[in-house]
Amino acid sequence: MPSKQILLVEDNPDLHQLTRHALGQEDEVVWARDGQQALDYLWARGEHAARDPSEQPALVILDMNLPMLSGLQVLRQLRENPLTEVTPVVMLTSSSEPDDVRACYRSGANGYVAKPVAFAQYRRKVASLRDFWLGVNETASLN
Amino acid sequence: MPSKQILLVEDNPDLHQLTRHALGQEDEVVWARDGQQALDYLWARGEHAARDPSEQPALVILDMNLPMLSGLQVLRQLRENPLTEVTPVVMLTSSSEPDDVRACYRSGANGYVAKPVAFAQYRRKVASLRDFWLGVNETASLN
Repeated sequence: MPSKQILLVEDNPDLHQLTRHALGQEDEVVWARDGQQALDYLWARGEHAARDPSEQPALVILDMNLPMLSGLQVLRQLRENPLTEVTPVVMLTSSSEPDDVRACYRSGANGYVAKPVAFAQYRRKVASLRDFWLGVNETASLN
Repeated sequence: MPSKQILLVEDNPDLHQLTRHALGQEDEVVWARDGQQALDYLWARGEHAARDPSEQPALVILDMNLPMLSGLQVLRQLRENPLTEVTPVVMLTSSSEPDDVRACYRSGANGYVAKPVAFAQYRRKVASLRDFWLGVNETASLN
């Protein structure tokens, strides 16, 4: 089976490293440091203009608190574009405010994961997320 | 931690048993045999009129091929009602037709799992599904 791809949208380099470590080695992990980089990658714009945007990652892991465009704004833009309207997006965020959770689901998030403080629990959650979204869930092809 | 609830919408009693077995003992599993029963349960109608519909299950597992209302019709109705617009719904179905997968995501499915034929694989997929959706994912409260 060819490796699947995860787009990890996270502005904090330490959390990027921690998450990548917890995701393991099986998949290709692409890192976007902010919302604009994420949109450029997914829509094949700017430095990613050579990508085929009909090839969408199996999962986008999207932080809420990003500089400039927030995670919620990124999510809403993704859902408005036919290229990314059905790309699976799981929020991975330090907020578990009910209003945030509800707003994300209403805006089309597939799942919502609260970042735990303890590393062992963080690792376990990310491993479970990877196992379901990369190993079990089916994505919709655009072709 | 109080046990969480799963609504399993499956018309085939054997597959209901198999899925329930694979889900394990940790959660409360409610069985609906068709789409109408599922809507009655989730919206607290008919024989479920005494339920508090603001208490939504942590996950709805929804078969596609149901008698009368199809799984896709049930999904669309759920998304149109404020009580169930953000209730997590994962399709568990024998179809992995790209058109079906796409239609489910467009209609608001959170995830899509193809039923494998082999029991060991079925069990593994359902266990992964349970682990993520019941153990890791956050749901939105309606209150």
